[in-house]
Amino acid sequence: MNTVQLVIEFLGTFAFAISGIRWAAYKNFDWFGGYVVGLVTAIGGGTIRDVMLGVTPFWMTNSIYIICTAAALVLAIIFKKAIVKFANTWFLFDTLGLALFTIAGMQKTLYAGFPFWVAIIMGCITGVAGGIIRDVLINEVPLIFRKEIYAVACILGGFVYQICYYLDFNIEIIVISSFTTVVFVRLMAVKYHISLPHLHDMDEK
Amino acid sequence: MNTVQLVIEFLGTFAFAISGIRWAAYKNFDWFGGYVVGLVTAIGGGTIRDVMLGVTPFWMTNSIYIICTAAALVLAIIFKKAIVKFANTWFLFDTLGLALFTIAGMQKTLYAGFPFWVAIIMGCITGVAGGIIRDVLINEVPLIFRKEIYAVACILGGFVYQICYYLDFNIEIIVISSFTTVVFVRLMAVKYHISLPHLHDMDEK
Amino acid sequence: MNTVQLVIEFLGTFAFAISGIRWAAYKNFDWFGGYVVGLVTAIGGGTIRDVMLGVTPFWMTNSIYIICTAAALVLAIIFKKAIVKFANTWFLFDTLGLALFTIAGMQKTLYAGFPFWVAIIMGCITGVAGGIIRDVLINEVPLIFRKEIYAVACILGGFVYQICYYLDFNIEIIVISSFTTVVFVRLMAVKYHISLPHLHDMDEK
Repeated sequence: MNTVQLVIEFLGTFAFAISGIRWAAYKNFDWFGGYVVGLVTAIGGGTIRDVMLGVTPFWMTNSIYIICTAAALVLAIIFKKAIVKFANTWFLFDTLGLALFTIAGMQKTLYAGFPFWVAIIMGCITGVAGGIIRDVLINEVPLIFRKEIYAVACILGGFVYQICYYLDFNIEIIVISSFTTVVFVRLMAVKYHISLPHLHDMDEK
Repeated sequence: MNTVQLVIEFLGTFAFAISGIRWAAYKNFDWFGGYVVGLVTAIGGGTIRDVMLGVTPFWMTNSIYIICTAAALVLAIIFKKAIVKFANTWFLFDTLGLALFTIAGMQKTLYAGFPFWVAIIMGCITGVAGGIIRDVLINEVPLIFRKEIYAVACILGGFVYQICYYLDFNIEIIVISSFTTVVFVRLMAVKYHISLPHLHDMDEK
Repeated sequence: MNTVQLVIEFLGTFAFAISGIRWAAYKNFDWFGGYVVGLVTAIGGGTIRDVMLGVTPFWMTNSIYIICTAAALVLAIIFKKAIVKFANTWFLFDTLGLALFTIAGMQKTLYAGFPFWVAIIMGCITGVAGGIIRDVLINEVPLIFRKEIYAVACILGGFVYQICYYLDFNIEIIVISSFTTVVFVRLMAVKYHISLPHLHDMDEK
């Protein structure tokens, strides 16, 4: 389990960083800008979570996230447009990473003694806040507020975790069920273009 | 006192959330985007304050804020444009909430052992930072930097608190004086279109 | 040493605040907006660092930063366009401040028990994150992601610090070498228009 988790964490971090770097490239940022946006996309959510939990941000105790983002940047610089050909690969890694980060965020929150509803919110923040900061830094409206089921996948995964927990399943089953839920919901939503209803403008403020 | 405070806190949270959701609707966000922007408007300021004070963010210990924002979203979805008809009501709740949040922010800071000048800044952050984050998330220049007396009401309320404190008034008098100041300044400013002077561009950067 | 450091810290804070206020003026913010943007530019980086290190933000224990920003605002209001004539002065102060903030950020991080790679990142955050928040608040793409060597100067200064440390130099030599590196790299980069390579757009997302 531990090795699988490590591999997914690495791939997820990599995919999140690539997503940030692609947007930075779209905005013609320089290498430093690309690195920062990539890094923030990958570690931003977990950092906000850790600061709110009152613990040391996870990336400060293990340099793998810094290195992983640097690798993503080097790859993006060398292979340029070829990066786009692997869009499906990044999408898969991104989805696996999303599921893993959500569950890791929940577990860390539960471990810190908070109730499930806080853990579900923290799982969601861990999964999606990095992408929101990315969009703020490139000066765009956060994508996640307008498109696709993304955060909802995290939240549903969180509920499945909670239900399985109350049903007294063992921890492997809980994690696998929750993980599968996030991945499945995300894949189905993209495949069938499912999205949440939109709000309608109420006034000319 | 306690019940009054609770009611105001609920109404204030509700009004702050509605303000976020209206802006989210204006930008055609989906339900999730509306919820996040509403929530951040309502709890963002207090969260920044608590993180800087080194205590657990207030909303993580009481689910009322999460529920209150959900109620605001449901209302906004069901009643749509009718929401706007109650603009004066939201404005009143918003103003009461602003006053309460400012004072709550000050008291928490003083209680943590910081001097008055830190408490006044923290009161102001509690009252206005949520609205600033809201504006960043919808990708607009923060309204508060260009329009109306809003933050100044918090700051004046803070000074009144400090003066009454040094005059050795009892706590009810202090709170009521400070609360009234925030509400009065805000109402007067809106009624008579009072605003701060603006800065003039110095250069073509 | 201590007095020199204090003077540089004051000048640096002042220059950072002026930079924020100029941008706020460019966007026609009011006085409050100018003050907030100036303050955030000056103290934003160090605040993020302190929150991640789990210590009380530095500006909450000494009111000099609040006062210094107020002085910068008053100056900007009174002298208006005349401020621009001193552009070279602000640039010099800004560069000295950048070097000092970077080193102060590193030392605080090392003192908290973190390894050098965390300290270098924190030094960089201390120096540049305030400017990034400033750009987010005025709703522009962060300047630092597209123009000039700025963050790279911090990072190189950080490496020089680390190398001198491992060479067992005494602390004065370490600090002076690192400080000189940041200042020198920044001055050279601006003089010879050196900048990092830019990323190229990979796709039409």
